Amino acid sequence: MVEISPLIKAITNRDSRAIARAITFVEDGDRQADLILTGLDPVLIEKATVIGITGPPGAGKSTLTDKLISQYRNQNERIGVIAIDPSSPISGGAILGDRIRMMKHALDNDVVMRSMATRGRLGGLCGAAGATARIMAGSGCSTIIIETVGVGQSEMDIIRLADITALVVAPGLGDDIQAMKAGLLEVADLLVVNKADCPGAEALAMDMETVAREKPPLADNLARVCLTVATEGRGIKELSEALARIDYLQRQGDEHVRRRQQARTMEVLDWSLEMLRPGLQDLINRHDVLETGDPRLLAAEIIKELMNH
Amino acid sequence: MVEISPLIKAITNRDSRAIARAITFVEDGDRQADLILTGLDPVLIEKATVIGITGPPGAGKSTLTDKLISQYRNQNERIGVIAIDPSSPISGGAILGDRIRMMKHALDNDVVMRSMATRGRLGGLCGAAGATARIMAGSGCSTIIIETVGVGQSEMDIIRLADITALVVAPGLGDDIQAMKAGLLEVADLLVVNKADCPGAEALAMDMETVAREKPPLADNLARVCLTVATEGRGIKELSEALARIDYLQRQGDEHVRRRQQARTMEVLDWSLEMLRPGLQDLINRHDVLETGDPRLLAAEIIKELMNH
Repeated sequence: MVEISPLIKAITNRDSRAIARAITFVEDGDRQADLILTGLDPVLIEKATVIGITGPPGAGKSTLTDKLISQYRNQNERIGVIAIDPSSPISGGAILGDRIRMMKHALDNDVVMRSMATRGRLGGLCGAAGATARIMAGSGCSTIIIETVGVGQSEMDIIRLADITALVVAPGLGDDIQAMKAGLLEVADLLVVNKADCPGAEALAMDMETVAREKPPLADNLARVCLTVATEGRGIKELSEALARIDYLQRQGDEHVRRRQQARTMEVLDWSLEMLRPGLQDLINRHDVLETGDPRLLAAEIIKELMNH
Repeated sequence: MVEISPLIKAITNRDSRAIARAITFVEDGDRQADLILTGLDPVLIEKATVIGITGPPGAGKSTLTDKLISQYRNQNERIGVIAIDPSSPISGGAILGDRIRMMKHALDNDVVMRSMATRGRLGGLCGAAGATARIMAGSGCSTIIIETVGVGQSEMDIIRLADITALVVAPGLGDDIQAMKAGLLEVADLLVVNKADCPGAEALAMDMETVAREKPPLADNLARVCLTVATEGRGIKELSEALARIDYLQRQGDEHVRRRQQARTMEVLDWSLEMLRPGLQDLINRHDVLETGDPRLLAAEIIKELMNH
C-alpha cells in the first residue's frame, strides 16, 4: 500500500513518474486508483478537453496527432495523449511504427503519453482510458488526445469518452475504408481530409462536405471539414482552431454536459462488466461447457448462480 | 410464438427462409433461439468446420472469401458465410462494397450468407456469430466461413470461435498493417499472402515464412504460408487444400476439441455479459452518474445492487 496523498500531490505537481504510476494502478484495476481519482482536482478535470482522433488505418492519424501535439505545445499548453493499439490478446500492446515517431515528445515533460492495448478483453479499456484522461487532466493537461483506429466496437466505445471527435480520412484507401467511414461519420464532430495533396483528395473533401451538411451544425460558419497534409504540418493550426471553436460552442450549450454524462455512463458500465468478468469466467469453467446444452441457456444458469452468491 | 419443431425441420431441410428466420431470433436474443439451437443435429454441428478469415482492411479478404466459396461449391460442398462488418453504433450494419460482389452467391441455395454488424454493443456478437454458425451447420453446411476485419478486440474474439484461422495479408499496406499483423500472427493457423503478383509480395511471403516457423507445426511438410491472387482465382485451390489438411490434423489430435471448448466458453461468457448489460445500464441510469464520485466505486456499488436483486 503506497501513501496516496503524496502521490496525488505529486500528480498535481506534474511529476511524470507519479502520473505513470497512477495510470498503471488504473490499468491493473488496483483499488488505489479509486482513491487517486477521487483526490484529483475536479475543476481541472472539468476544464480539460478530451479530443478523440479516429479513422481507418493508413489515414495518417499518428502523424496528425504528432503535429497537433507540437501545435498545442507552441501555444504553451500541456497535453496528454492516450494511444489505443489494436493488439493481440496474447502479446499485449506493441507500439505501432507510426507511434514511434511521436516518441520525440516523450522528452517533453509537458506531453504525457500513454499507449494502451486492447488486449484480451472486451471490457476494461473504456474504464482505463477514461480514468487515464482524468489523471492527465488532474496533472494540468488542458487537452487530452485519445487516438484510436476507428474500426471495431471497442474502439468506437472509446470515442464516446471524448468531448470532441475528429475523424481522419485520406484519399485512396479503398472500399473497406469507405464503409468504415460511413459508420464513423455519425460520431464525428469534425472531418479531417488528410493527405490533401494526394490525388482524389478534392473529391473526398467534397464528399465529406456533403455528408457533414446532413448533421445540424453547432453554429453557422463552423468548419466541418479540415484539409491537412500532416507530414508537412499543413492545416494543423486551422485544425486546432476548429477544435477549439467546437469546444467553446459545446461548453456554451448543454452539449458538453451531455457528452460528459455519456462518457461517465460508458465508464461505469465498462468497469461494472469488467468487475463481473472474472466471476463469470470462474462459473463457466466450473461447468463443463462442452457437456451442457445451448450457450444461451447455460449463460442464463450462470447468471442465476452469480446472483445467488 | 412460432411453432419451433416445424422450423427446426425446415432448417434441416435447408429452407433458406427458415434459416434466415432462426438467425434473426439469435441476433435479437429471442428466447426461441435456445429451443432451435438445442433442436439441431449435434452430429452435423460437430462435423462442420468453422474457418475464420481475418486480416487488415485492403488485404483482399472479401475477394478471397468469394473465391473460396466458388471453390467449395465446385467440390459440391454446402457453405455458410458470416461476414462481420465494422459498423456504426447508430446505423447498424451496412454492407461493405467488396461484400456486394459476394452477393452473386446469394442466388445459390447452397451458400448461406449472413452479414452481422458489430453495432452498439461490446458483447453479443460472439454469441450471435457462434449460434449462427451452428444453425448453418445444422442446415447441412460442411464449412462455415467467418470473415472479419482483424482489427479491434471484438473482431479478435470472433476469431476464437473458429476451428481454423487464416490471416490474409498483402504487400504495400504500410506501418499500421505491420503492427496488426504482428498481433494476429499468434492466432493464425495459416498465413495467406494475397496480391502475390504485386511488388513486395515475395519479401512479405519470406517474412511470413520466418514468423510461421516460430510456431510448432501440426505436422511436417504442412504449408504455413499460401500465396494467392484472389482477383484471378490463383492459389485458391491450394488454400482450400491446406485448410482441409489442417482440419484433418486438428481432428486427429485433441486440438479440435480444445478449440471447440474455447469457442463454447467464449460464447457463454459473451451471452452472460450481454444478458447482464440491460440490468446494469438500468442501474447506472437510476444513479445520477455525474453527481457521484469515481466510476470504479460507482461500478462496485451497482454490482452490489445487482447481486441483491
